Amino acid sequence: MKNTTLCYLEQDGCWLMLYRPPREDDANQEKWLGVGGKCEEGESPEDCILREVLEETGLRLLRYRYRGLVTFVSDRWPTEYMHLFTSDAFAGSIRPCDEGELRWVQKGNVPLLPIWEGDRIFLRLLEENAPFFSLKLVYAGNRLTQAVLDGAPLPGTGGHS
Amino acid sequence: MKNTTLCYLEQDGCWLMLYRPPREDDANQEKWLGVGGKCEEGESPEDCILREVLEETGLRLLRYRYRGLVTFVSDRWPTEYMHLFTSDAFAGSIRPCDEGELRWVQKGNVPLLPIWEGDRIFLRLLEENAPFFSLKLVYAGNRLTQAVLDGAPLPGTGGHS
Repeated sequence: MKNTTLCYLEQDGCWLMLYRPPREDDANQEKWLGVGGKCEEGESPEDCILREVLEETGLRLLRYRYRGLVTFVSDRWPTEYMHLFTSDAFAGSIRPCDEGELRWVQKGNVPLLPIWEGDRIFLRLLEENAPFFSLKLVYAGNRLTQAVLDGAPLPGTGGHS
Repeated sequence: MKNTTLCYLEQDGCWLMLYRPPREDDANQEKWLGVGGKCEEGESPEDCILREVLEETGLRLLRYRYRGLVTFVSDRWPTEYMHLFTSDAFAGSIRPCDEGELRWVQKGNVPLLPIWEGDRIFLRLLEENAPFFSLKLVYAGNRLTQAVLDGAPLPGTGGHS
């Protein structure tokens, strides 16, 4: 089981999105998502997100919120706990990212990008300012087969476990 | 990095506590704590806590709340993310536990038991009905050297990182 962090930086009605180029060992290849990475020994999720955002963007988070835990289950990849953050205050200038292309995208346009199907669920929760949530997303390949929010299956996503 | 769950069941002003007997490979040996265990592949924290509480106590949780994430950092054990739950509604009867002795303990007496020093911090947060929190606890052996709540060091626990 893997622990990662994922942060959506917010500015002028946009999210900062990262495009992950084709790479066979990357579950997120050819998809857009926030910035973040793998939690290291001795790090809390907060330690990790501060480090990862700085490494990937050059930005230093001045304020952030821990918004939810996403359990990513796949028939192709090991189970991953993604610790989800948002930030609306940061310092510095964006520099090119080793991991892919960074771009500010209008929030309304993000669901139109190639993103994981289940990301639309948690992006909506972020937009609705939902309290801390635990969202389990189960995939067969790229297809979302089940979504469970705080222990309760969401309708229209395979449903029963 | 290890992911575990920990649940404090509540009844008549008591917490259900588990005493872990001496065992060299158990970081929690000779301490009292809630019930729970290791998250398995494919499980969300909710899946894990339902399974672990049933296995360890014979009780089926009817209602539970995900209360916080505790990052346990130690100079003796690998870093552990403990997903913390409480429950005030469950069904069934308590059966003996393979892992140690189960006992209902008045909440006010729990801090007097041999427990991890940092557990007193999160038990207070649970009692105060704090919103979801992320608490990092750093230990040298049994001594708490640092506590960081939602990214901010708590006074009187070593403080700076």
